[in-house]
Amino acid sequence: MRGEPLDAEMIVSATEELLRRHGPEKTTVLDVARLLGVSHGSVYRHFPSKAALREAVIRRWLDRVRDDFAAAAQDAELSPPDRLRGLLTTMFAAKWAKAREDPELFATFRVLAAEHSTVSSGHVTFLLTQIRTVVGDGIAGGDFAAGEPEAIARAIFNATSRFHDPTHAAEWHSPETEAESADVISLILDGIRAR
Amino acid sequence: MRGEPLDAEMIVSATEELLRRHGPEKTTVLDVARLLGVSHGSVYRHFPSKAALREAVIRRWLDRVRDDFAAAAQDAELSPPDRLRGLLTTMFAAKWAKAREDPELFATFRVLAAEHSTVSSGHVTFLLTQIRTVVGDGIAGGDFAAGEPEAIARAIFNATSRFHDPTHAAEWHSPETEAESADVISLILDGIRAR
Repeated sequence: MRGEPLDAEMIVSATEELLRRHGPEKTTVLDVARLLGVSHGSVYRHFPSKAALREAVIRRWLDRVRDDFAAAAQDAELSPPDRLRGLLTTMFAAKWAKAREDPELFATFRVLAAEHSTVSSGHVTFLLTQIRTVVGDGIAGGDFAAGEPEAIARAIFNATSRFHDPTHAAEWHSPETEAESADVISLILDGIRAR
Repeated sequence: MRGEPLDAEMIVSATEELLRRHGPEKTTVLDVARLLGVSHGSVYRHFPSKAALREAVIRRWLDRVRDDFAAAAQDAELSPPDRLRGLLTTMFAAKWAKAREDPELFATFRVLAAEHSTVSSGHVTFLLTQIRTVVGDGIAGGDFAAGEPEAIARAIFNATSRFHDPTHAAEWHSPETEAESADVISLILDGIRAR
């Protein structure tokens, strides 16, 4: 690493690597500094605490899937009901894949979610906004019954906790999860469509 | 306790008392025997293990609320939609009250639920049966759209995890929980009603 100026992105990458190897409990600022061959003071200059560092890793990790979610929510070829189904399915599949393929970073995300960190609540706000947009479009176009998109989006988010809330990760291994999530999505779509 | 013959009920009561005082981790068969003034062999004669004892306590604890649930589900004065709303509301309120008022026994219940013990899965089956009965009556009477009551009950149970699954207990303190659960129940009722 010597020769290159130390920037925040390099620190986040090193921390991500260590979190993946050792998990959220055992990764310290000193470990990060050691991996980068710098003093821990240099790390602190960019991130005031271990918590800030951990948040930066999870923020970037969550950002990587946001584009997929937004694409599913905005696909202009599809009707709002199909866009909502696509958005929810994409959102669940992304969570399940992360829990399965990246368990240590997922554990870190769970810790932040349990602590109601700004990263975790920012992620919830992002998801709610995506759902609200599709619901609003569906109401405007007459596919969905009239209502308050904000409150409907929140109800949809709450009604699907079992499939996206990290607290349920241990259940996602079950082979029935996918079919069960499809049934809940159908129930929701029936609940909001115009009569 | 001397003089009285030792029966399973007395052992379960003593264990419940100890679980409430010390929590699931710290309550042993020896503690139970000591509280009752008997040998631990006498306890083992009724319950083959600490796990069996813990299950018996939670089974009895859950049994106490079953009658309330069944009454809400079967109220003949009400229409199936109102019965379903009543059943779900009663079920959530009972869980929230137990988590708040009886945190140590609730923690024991969480352990059993995480281990998929027969007590916990029996409780889930009981709840699903209650929901399925009301859904079946609603379909038969024309209030709800045609469908498979078993699958619909499972979808309703999954769509309300956030309000009854012990893994979400930490969120139930939030003042919005009650209003949010009412919105999800309304979404579900709209989803299943006849068109």
